[in-house]
Amino acid sequence: MARVSQEHLDARRRQILDGAARCFARNGFHATSMQDVLKEVDLSAGAVYRYFSGKEELIAAIVREVLAQVRGGFEEAARSSPPPPPDLLVTSVLGRVLAAKEDLTVDGRPAFPGLVIQVWAETLRNDDLAVVLREGYGAVQETWSRIVAAYQEAGIMRSDVSPDHVTRTMMATAMGFIAQQALFGPAPAEILGDGLRALTSVRDHSAVNVPETRSN
Amino acid sequence: MARVSQEHLDARRRQILDGAARCFARNGFHATSMQDVLKEVDLSAGAVYRYFSGKEELIAAIVREVLAQVRGGFEEAARSSPPPPPDLLVTSVLGRVLAAKEDLTVDGRPAFPGLVIQVWAETLRNDDLAVVLREGYGAVQETWSRIVAAYQEAGIMRSDVSPDHVTRTMMATAMGFIAQQALFGPAPAEILGDGLRALTSVRDHSAVNVPETRSN
Repeated sequence: MARVSQEHLDARRRQILDGAARCFARNGFHATSMQDVLKEVDLSAGAVYRYFSGKEELIAAIVREVLAQVRGGFEEAARSSPPPPPDLLVTSVLGRVLAAKEDLTVDGRPAFPGLVIQVWAETLRNDDLAVVLREGYGAVQETWSRIVAAYQEAGIMRSDVSPDHVTRTMMATAMGFIAQQALFGPAPAEILGDGLRALTSVRDHSAVNVPETRSN
Repeated sequence: MARVSQEHLDARRRQILDGAARCFARNGFHATSMQDVLKEVDLSAGAVYRYFSGKEELIAAIVREVLAQVRGGFEEAARSSPPPPPDLLVTSVLGRVLAAKEDLTVDGRPAFPGLVIQVWAETLRNDDLAVVLREGYGAVQETWSRIVAAYQEAGIMRSDVSPDHVTRTMMATAMGFIAQQALFGPAPAEILGDGLRALTSVRDHSAVNVPETRSN
Protein backbone atom coordinates (compact mmCIF):
# COMPACT_ATOMS: atom_id res chain seq x y z
CA MET A 1 0.00 0.00 0.00
CA ALA A 2 3.06 2.26 -0.09
CA ARG A 3 1.94 3.76 -3.39
CA VAL A 4 -1.47 4.82 -2.13
CA SER A 5 0.18 6.30 0.91
CA GLN A 6 2.56 8.34 -1.27
CA GLU A 7 -0.39 9.57 -3.30
CA HIS A 8 -2.13 10.58 -0.12
CA LEU A 9 0.98 12.40 1.09
CA ASP A 10 1.32 14.20 -2.23
CA ALA A 11 -2.34 15.22 -2.25
CA ARG A 12 -2.14 16.51 1.29
CA ARG A 13 1.03 18.45 0.50
CA ARG A 14 -0.72 19.91 -2.57
CA GLN A 15 -3.72 20.90 -0.45
CA ILE A 16 -1.47 22.76 2.00
CA LEU A 17 0.50 24.49 -0.76
CA ASP A 18 -2.66 25.65 -2.55
CA GLY A 19 -4.26 26.92 0.65
CA ALA A 20 -1.08 28.73 1.62
CA ALA A 21 -0.81 30.17 -1.90
CA ARG A 22 -4.30 31.64 -1.55
CA CYS A 23 -3.37 33.22 1.80
CA PHE A 24 -0.12 34.59 0.43
CA ALA A 25 -1.74 35.94 -2.74
CA ARG A 26 -4.32 37.70 -0.58
CA ASN A 27 -2.07 39.18 2.04
CA GLY A 28 1.59 38.68 1.15
CA PHE A 29 4.04 36.25 2.69
CA HIS A 30 4.93 38.18 5.80
CA ALA A 31 1.54 39.52 6.83
CA THR A 32 0.21 35.94 6.70
CA SER A 33 0.55 33.84 9.85
CA MET A 34 0.71 30.06 10.10
CA GLN A 35 -2.65 30.36 11.89
CA ASP A 36 -4.09 31.93 8.72
CA VAL A 37 -2.75 29.02 6.68
CA LEU A 38 -4.11 26.38 9.10
CA LYS A 39 -7.54 28.03 8.96
CA GLU A 40 -7.48 28.21 5.16
CA VAL A 41 -6.53 24.55 4.66
CA ASP A 42 -8.71 23.41 7.59
CA LEU A 43 -6.02 21.14 9.03
CA SER A 44 -4.42 20.87 12.45
CA ALA A 45 -1.00 22.34 13.15
CA GLY A 46 0.30 18.78 13.60
CA ALA A 47 -0.91 17.77 10.15
CA VAL A 48 0.68 20.80 8.46
CA TYR A 49 3.98 20.71 10.35
CA ARG A 50 4.43 17.10 9.22
CA TYR A 51 4.99 18.53 5.72
CA PHE A 52 6.56 21.92 6.37
CA SER A 53 8.77 22.87 9.31
CA GLY A 54 7.32 26.37 9.37
CA LYS A 55 6.34 29.41 7.35
CA GLU A 56 9.79 29.99 5.85
CA GLU A 57 9.81 26.46 4.40
CA LEU A 58 6.28 26.92 3.08
CA ILE A 59 7.26 30.24 1.48
CA ALA A 60 10.35 28.67 -0.09
CA ALA A 61 8.28 25.79 -1.52
CA ILE A 62 5.77 28.18 -3.07
CA VAL A 63 8.43 30.53 -4.41
CA ARG A 64 10.21 27.61 -6.08
CA GLU A 65 6.97 26.32 -7.55
CA VAL A 66 5.89 29.70 -8.91
CA LEU A 67 9.34 30.36 -10.39
CA ALA A 68 9.30 26.92 -12.02
CA GLN A 69 5.87 27.63 -13.53
CA VAL A 70 6.91 31.02 -14.90
CA ARG A 71 10.13 29.54 -16.29
CA GLY A 72 8.13 26.65 -17.77
CA GLY A 73 5.77 29.10 -19.48
CA PHE A 74 8.70 30.96 -21.04
CA GLU A 75 10.42 27.75 -22.17
CA GLU A 76 7.34 25.98 -23.54
CA ALA A 77 6.38 29.04 -25.55
CA ALA A 78 9.74 28.75 -27.32
CA ARG A 79 9.35 25.05 -28.07
CA SER A 80 7.17 25.16 -31.20
CA SER A 81 8.95 24.63 -34.48
CA PRO A 82 9.44 26.91 -36.32
CA PRO A 83 9.57 29.35 -33.39
CA PRO A 84 6.75 31.89 -33.47
CA PRO A 85 7.44 35.54 -34.38
CA PRO A 86 8.15 37.89 -31.43
CA ASP A 87 4.57 39.08 -30.87
CA LEU A 88 3.21 35.54 -30.76
CA LEU A 89 6.11 34.27 -28.66
CA VAL A 90 5.55 36.86 -25.95
CA THR A 91 1.76 36.44 -26.05
CA SER A 92 1.98 32.68 -25.74
CA VAL A 93 4.16 32.95 -22.62
CA LEU A 94 1.33 34.80 -20.97
CA GLY A 95 -1.27 32.28 -21.99
CA ARG A 96 0.89 29.52 -20.52
CA VAL A 97 1.90 31.33 -17.34
CA LEU A 98 -1.66 32.43 -16.59
CA ALA A 99 -3.04 28.95 -17.32
CA ALA A 100 -0.55 27.41 -14.87
CA LYS A 101 -2.74 28.03 -11.85
CA GLU A 102 -6.11 28.98 -13.31
CA ASP A 103 -8.02 27.26 -10.53
CA LEU A 104 -6.19 29.23 -7.84
CA THR A 105 -8.50 32.18 -7.19
CA VAL A 106 -8.94 34.78 -4.47
CA ASP A 107 -12.29 36.60 -4.34
CA GLY A 108 -13.12 35.06 -7.71
CA ARG A 109 -10.04 36.49 -9.42
CA PRO A 110 -6.95 34.58 -10.59
CA ALA A 111 -4.40 34.59 -7.77
CA PHE A 112 -1.32 33.58 -9.72
CA PRO A 113 -0.21 37.00 -11.05
CA GLY A 114 -0.34 38.45 -7.53
CA LEU A 115 1.66 35.52 -6.30
CA VAL A 116 4.31 36.20 -8.94
CA ILE A 117 4.75 39.74 -7.59
CA GLN A 118 5.03 38.41 -4.03
CA VAL A 119 7.59 35.87 -5.24
CA TRP A 120 9.69 38.53 -6.94
CA ALA A 121 9.62 40.57 -3.75
CA GLU A 122 10.65 37.54 -1.71
CA THR A 123 13.65 36.74 -3.92
CA LEU A 124 15.02 40.21 -3.12
CA ARG A 125 15.54 39.26 0.52
CA ASN A 126 16.41 35.56 0.18
CA ASP A 127 19.67 34.69 -1.53
CA ASP A 128 18.80 30.99 -2.03
CA LEU A 129 15.61 31.87 -3.85
CA ALA A 130 17.38 34.59 -5.82
CA VAL A 131 19.68 31.87 -7.17
CA VAL A 132 16.68 29.83 -8.36
CA LEU A 133 15.25 32.90 -10.07
CA ARG A 134 18.53 33.71 -11.82
CA GLU A 135 19.04 30.12 -12.98
CA GLY A 136 15.59 30.17 -14.57
CA TYR A 137 16.27 33.54 -16.12
CA GLY A 138 19.60 32.36 -17.52
CA ALA A 139 18.01 29.29 -19.12
CA VAL A 140 15.20 31.32 -20.73
CA GLN A 141 17.66 33.96 -21.87
CA GLU A 142 19.71 31.28 -23.65
CA THR A 143 16.75 29.63 -25.40
CA TRP A 144 15.16 32.89 -26.45
CA SER A 145 18.44 34.39 -27.66
CA ARG A 146 18.79 31.46 -30.09
CA ILE A 147 15.34 32.27 -31.44
CA VAL A 148 16.20 35.95 -31.80
CA ALA A 149 19.41 35.05 -33.63
CA ALA A 150 17.23 32.95 -35.96
CA TYR A 151 14.96 35.96 -36.64
CA GLN A 152 18.07 37.92 -37.52
CA GLU A 153 19.56 35.20 -39.72
CA ALA A 154 16.24 34.91 -41.56
CA GLY A 155 16.41 38.65 -42.21
CA ILE A 156 13.14 39.52 -40.51
CA MET A 157 14.83 41.53 -37.74
CA ARG A 158 17.73 43.99 -37.94
CA SER A 159 20.89 42.14 -37.07
CA ASP A 160 22.95 44.98 -35.57
CA VAL A 161 21.37 44.50 -32.14
CA SER A 162 22.54 41.95 -29.57
CA PRO A 163 20.09 39.00 -29.35
CA ASP A 164 20.47 39.25 -25.56
CA HIS A 165 19.10 42.78 -25.60
CA VAL A 166 16.11 41.76 -27.71
CA THR A 167 15.48 38.77 -25.44
CA ARG A 168 15.60 40.94 -22.36
CA THR A 169 13.14 43.33 -23.93
CA MET A 170 10.69 40.59 -24.90
CA MET A 171 10.97 39.08 -21.43
CA ALA A 172 10.41 42.52 -19.88
CA THR A 173 7.21 42.90 -21.88
CA ALA A 174 5.88 39.56 -20.67
CA MET A 175 6.96 40.23 -17.06
CA GLY A 176 5.40 43.69 -17.09
CA PHE A 177 2.13 42.32 -18.42
CA ILE A 178 2.04 39.68 -15.67
CA ALA A 179 2.55 42.53 -13.18
CA GLN A 180 -0.31 44.45 -14.81
CA GLN A 181 -2.60 41.44 -14.40
CA ALA A 182 -1.89 41.51 -10.69
CA LEU A 183 -2.08 45.28 -10.26
CA PHE A 184 -4.89 46.30 -12.61
CA GLY A 185 -6.93 43.10 -12.81
CA PRO A 186 -7.26 40.30 -15.36
CA ALA A 187 -6.93 41.22 -19.03
CA PRO A 188 -6.68 39.00 -22.09
CA ALA A 189 -3.19 38.23 -23.44
CA GLU A 190 -4.46 39.42 -26.83
CA ILE A 191 -4.03 43.02 -25.62
CA LEU A 192 -0.30 42.42 -25.57
CA GLY A 193 -0.43 40.63 -28.92
CA ASP A 194 -2.18 43.65 -30.42
CA GLY A 195 0.29 46.04 -28.87
CA LEU A 196 3.30 44.11 -30.11
CA ARG A 197 1.84 43.83 -33.60
CA ALA A 198 1.46 47.60 -33.60
CA LEU A 199 5.00 48.15 -32.31
CA THR A 200 6.48 45.84 -34.92
CA SER A 201 4.59 47.86 -37.55
CA VAL A 202 6.41 51.09 -36.70
CA ARG A 203 8.00 52.54 -39.81
CA ASP A 204 10.62 55.20 -40.40
CA HIS A 205 9.84 57.10 -37.26
CA SER A 206 13.06 59.03 -37.50
CA ALA A 207 11.79 60.69 -40.66
CA VAL A 208 8.35 61.68 -39.38
CA ASN A 209 7.49 64.38 -36.88
CA VAL A 210 4.74 63.14 -34.62
CA PRO A 211 2.39 66.14 -34.28
CA GLU A 212 1.76 67.71 -30.87
CA THR A 213 -1.72 66.69 -29.71
CA ARG A 214 -1.90 68.14 -26.26
CA SER A 215 -3.56 71.53 -25.74
CA ASN A 216 -1.45 72.54 -22.74
CA MET B 1 11.60 81.19 12.89
CA ALA B 2 8.58 79.14 11.75
CA ARG B 3 10.12 78.68 8.32
CA VAL B 4 13.39 77.23 9.58
CA SER B 5 11.41 74.98 11.85
CA GLN B 6 9.35 73.68 8.94
CA GLU B 7 12.56 73.04 7.00
CA HIS B 8 13.91 71.14 9.94
CA LEU B 9 10.71 69.09 10.19
CA ASP B 10 10.83 68.33 6.48
CA ALA B 11 14.48 67.31 6.59
CA ARG B 12 13.89 65.04 9.56
CA ARG B 13 10.87 63.48 7.85
CA ARG B 14 13.00 62.94 4.74
CA GLN B 15 15.75 61.33 6.83
CA ILE B 16 13.25 58.89 8.33
CA LEU B 17 11.67 58.05 4.98
CA ASP B 18 15.03 57.43 3.30
CA GLY B 19 16.27 55.24 6.16
CA ALA B 20 13.03 53.29 6.18
CA ALA B 21 13.19 52.93 2.39
CA ARG B 22 16.66 51.37 2.70
CA CYS B 23 15.35 48.91 5.31
CA PHE B 24 12.32 48.05 3.22
CA ALA B 25 14.33 47.66 0.01
CA ARG B 26 16.67 45.31 1.86
CA ASN B 27 14.15 43.16 3.65
CA GLY B 28 10.62 43.96 2.51
CA PHE B 29 7.95 45.89 4.39
CA HIS B 30 6.73 43.13 6.67
CA ALA B 31 9.99 41.49 7.65
CA THR B 32 11.26 44.94 8.74
CA SER B 33 10.53 46.04 12.30
CA MET B 34 10.26 49.58 13.63
CA GLN B 35 13.39 48.71 15.65
CA ASP B 36 15.23 48.10 12.35
CA VAL B 37 14.09 51.51 11.11
CA LEU B 38 15.10 53.29 14.32
CA LYS B 39 18.54 51.70 14.13
CA GLU B 40 18.95 52.64 10.46
CA VAL B 41 18.00 56.30 10.94
CA ASP B 42 19.78 56.49 14.31
CA LEU B 43 16.91 58.30 16.01
CA SER B 44 14.90 57.60 19.15
CA ALA B 45 11.46 56.04 18.99
CA GLY B 46 10.04 59.33 20.28
CA ALA B 47 11.64 61.27 17.43
CA VAL B 48 10.32 58.89 14.77
CA TYR B 49 6.81 58.50 16.20
CA ARG B 50 6.44 62.27 16.14
CA TYR B 51 6.31 61.95 12.33
CA PHE B 52 4.74 58.54 11.76
CA SER B 53 2.23 56.82 14.02
CA GLY B 54 3.72 53.41 13.20
CA LYS B 55 4.99 51.10 10.52
CA GLU B 56 1.76 51.05 8.53
CA GLU B 57 1.84 54.84 8.19
CA LEU B 58 5.51 54.72 7.22
CA ILE B 59 4.79 52.04 4.60
CA ALA B 60 1.88 54.04 3.20
CA ALA B 61 4.04 57.19 2.95
CA ILE B 62 6.76 55.31 1.07
CA VAL B 63 4.33 53.50 -1.21
CA ARG B 64 2.70 56.82 -2.15
CA GLU B 65 6.07 58.43 -2.77
CA VAL B 66 7.37 55.57 -4.92
CA LEU B 67 4.14 55.43 -6.94
CA ALA B 68 4.31 59.20 -7.47
CA GLN B 69 7.90 58.88 -8.70
CA VAL B 70 7.09 56.07 -11.12
CA ARG B 71 4.03 57.94 -12.39
CA GLY B 72 6.14 61.10 -12.71
CA GLY B 73 8.72 59.22 -14.77
CA PHE B 74 6.05 57.94 -17.15
CA GLU B 75 4.42 61.37 -17.48
CA GLU B 76 7.60 63.40 -17.90
CA ALA B 77 8.85 61.06 -20.60
CA ALA B 78 5.72 61.90 -22.58
CA ARG B 79 6.14 65.66 -22.17
CA SER B 80 8.65 66.44 -24.91
CA SER B 81 7.26 67.92 -28.08
CA PRO B 82 7.04 66.28 -30.55
CA PRO B 83 6.62 63.11 -28.50
CA PRO B 84 9.49 60.64 -28.98
CA PRO B 85 8.99 57.42 -31.00
CA PRO B 86 7.96 54.33 -28.98
CA ASP B 87 11.46 52.96 -28.35
CA LEU B 88 12.75 56.30 -27.05
CA LEU B 89 9.58 56.95 -25.03
CA VAL B 90 9.86 53.67 -23.15
CA THR B 91 13.62 54.05 -22.67
CA SER B 92 13.31 57.55 -21.33
CA VAL B 93 10.78 56.42 -18.70
CA LEU B 94 13.42 54.11 -17.34
CA GLY B 95 16.08 56.78 -17.26
CA ARG B 96 13.72 59.02 -15.32
CA VAL B 97 12.37 56.39 -12.94
CA LEU B 98 15.83 55.06 -12.14
CA ALA B 99 17.22 58.56 -11.63
CA ALA B 100 14.43 59.38 -9.15
CA LYS B 101 16.28 57.86 -6.20
CA GLU B 102 19.81 57.32 -7.48
CA ASP B 103 21.33 58.12 -4.10
CA LEU B 104 19.23 55.47 -2.34
CA THR B 105 21.49 52.41 -2.31
CA VAL B 106 21.66 49.12 -0.44
CA ASP B 107 25.01 47.30 -0.44
CA GLY B 108 26.19 49.73 -3.10
CA ARG B 109 23.36 48.91 -5.51
CA PRO B 110 20.42 51.14 -6.42
CA ALA B 111 17.54 50.35 -4.05
CA PHE B 112 14.70 51.96 -5.98
CA PRO B 113 13.82 49.09 -8.38
CA GLY B 114 13.52 46.67 -5.46
CA LEU B 115 11.36 49.16 -3.66
CA VAL B 116 9.04 49.34 -6.69
CA ILE B 117 8.52 45.56 -6.49
CA GLN B 118 7.80 45.79 -2.76
CA VAL B 119 5.36 48.62 -3.46
CA TRP B 120 3.52 46.61 -6.11
CA ALA B 121 3.24 43.72 -3.67
CA GLU B 122 1.93 46.04 -0.98
CA THR B 123 -0.81 47.52 -3.19
CA LEU B 124 -2.20 43.98 -3.61
CA ARG B 125 -3.17 43.86 0.06
CA ASN B 126 -4.05 47.49 0.71
CA ASP B 127 -7.11 48.90 -1.05
CA ASP B 128 -6.26 52.56 -0.33
CA LEU B 129 -2.84 52.19 -1.92
CA ALA B 130 -4.31 50.20 -4.81
CA VAL B 131 -6.49 53.24 -5.57
CA VAL B 132 -3.41 55.48 -5.74
CA LEU B 133 -1.74 53.01 -8.09
CA ARG B 134 -4.76 52.80 -10.39
CA GLU B 135 -5.19 56.58 -10.50
CA GLY B 136 -1.59 56.93 -11.61
CA TYR B 137 -2.01 54.17 -14.16
CA GLY B 138 -5.18 55.77 -15.54
CA ALA B 139 -3.46 59.14 -15.96
CA VAL B 140 -0.44 57.63 -17.73
CA GLN B 141 -2.70 55.47 -19.90
CA GLU B 142 -4.57 58.59 -21.04
CA THR B 143 -1.45 60.63 -21.86
CA TRP B 144 0.31 57.77 -23.64
CA SER B 145 -2.78 56.76 -25.61
CA ARG B 146 -2.90 60.27 -27.08
CA ILE B 147 0.70 59.85 -28.20
CA VAL B 148 -0.03 56.44 -29.73
CA ALA B 149 -3.02 57.91 -31.57
CA ALA B 150 -0.62 60.56 -32.92
CA TYR B 151 1.77 57.85 -34.17
CA GLN B 152 -1.17 56.28 -35.95
CA GLU B 153 -2.44 59.56 -37.42
CA ALA B 154 1.06 60.32 -38.68
CA GLY B 155 1.05 56.94 -40.43
CA ILE B 156 4.11 55.53 -38.66
CA MET B 157 2.13 52.81 -36.84
CA ARG B 158 -0.66 50.57 -38.09
CA SER B 159 -3.95 52.16 -37.08
CA ASP B 160 -6.12 49.04 -36.74
CA VAL B 161 -4.97 48.47 -33.15
CA SER B 162 -6.50 50.18 -30.12
CA PRO B 163 -4.14 52.88 -28.76
CA ASP B 164 -4.98 51.54 -25.29
CA HIS B 165 -3.53 48.16 -26.18
CA VAL B 166 -0.34 49.69 -27.53
CA THR B 167 -0.04 51.88 -24.44
CA ARG B 168 -0.50 48.90 -22.14
CA THR B 169 2.18 47.04 -24.05
CA MET B 170 4.68 49.91 -23.87
CA MET B 171 3.97 50.33 -20.15
CA ALA B 172 4.41 46.59 -19.64
CA THR B 173 7.84 46.74 -21.27
CA ALA B 174 8.95 49.57 -18.98
CA MET B 175 7.47 47.89 -15.88
CA GLY B 176 9.07 44.56 -16.73
CA PHE B 177 12.45 46.18 -17.21
CA ILE B 178 12.17 47.91 -13.83
CA ALA B 179 11.41 44.47 -12.35
CA GLN B 180 14.49 43.05 -14.11
CA GLN B 181 16.66 45.76 -12.58
CA ALA B 182 15.51 44.63 -9.16
CA LEU B 183 15.71 40.90 -9.84
CA PHE B 184 18.81 40.57 -12.04
CA GLY B 185 20.79 43.65 -11.04
CA PRO B 186 21.38 47.07 -12.59
CA ALA B 187 21.50 47.27 -16.38
CA PRO B 188 21.58 50.30 -18.68
CA ALA B 189 18.26 51.47 -20.14
CA GLU B 190 19.93 51.31 -23.56
CA ILE B 191 19.42 47.53 -23.53
CA LEU B 192 15.71 48.15 -23.73
CA GLY B 193 16.20 50.84 -26.36
CA ASP B 194 18.18 48.35 -28.47
CA GLY B 195 15.57 45.65 -27.99
CA LEU B 196 12.70 47.92 -28.96
CA ARG B 197 14.57 49.18 -32.02
CA ALA B 198 15.02 45.56 -33.08
CA LEU B 199 11.37 44.73 -32.43
CA THR B 200 10.16 47.73 -34.40
CA SER B 201 12.38 46.54 -37.27
CA VAL B 202 10.54 43.21 -37.62
CA ARG B 203 9.32 42.76 -41.18
CA ASP B 204 6.85 40.43 -42.86
CA HIS B 205 7.28 37.70 -40.33
CA SER B 206 4.12 35.98 -41.49
CA ALA B 207 5.78 35.28 -44.82
CA VAL B 208 9.07 33.91 -43.49
CA ASN B 209 9.69 30.59 -41.81
CA VAL B 210 12.15 31.04 -39.00
CA PRO B 211 14.50 28.04 -39.25
CA GLU B 212 14.73 25.56 -36.41
CA THR B 213 18.01 26.13 -34.55
CA ARG B 214 17.79 23.63 -31.75
CA SER B 215 19.39 20.25 -32.16
CA ASN B 216 16.95 18.37 -29.93
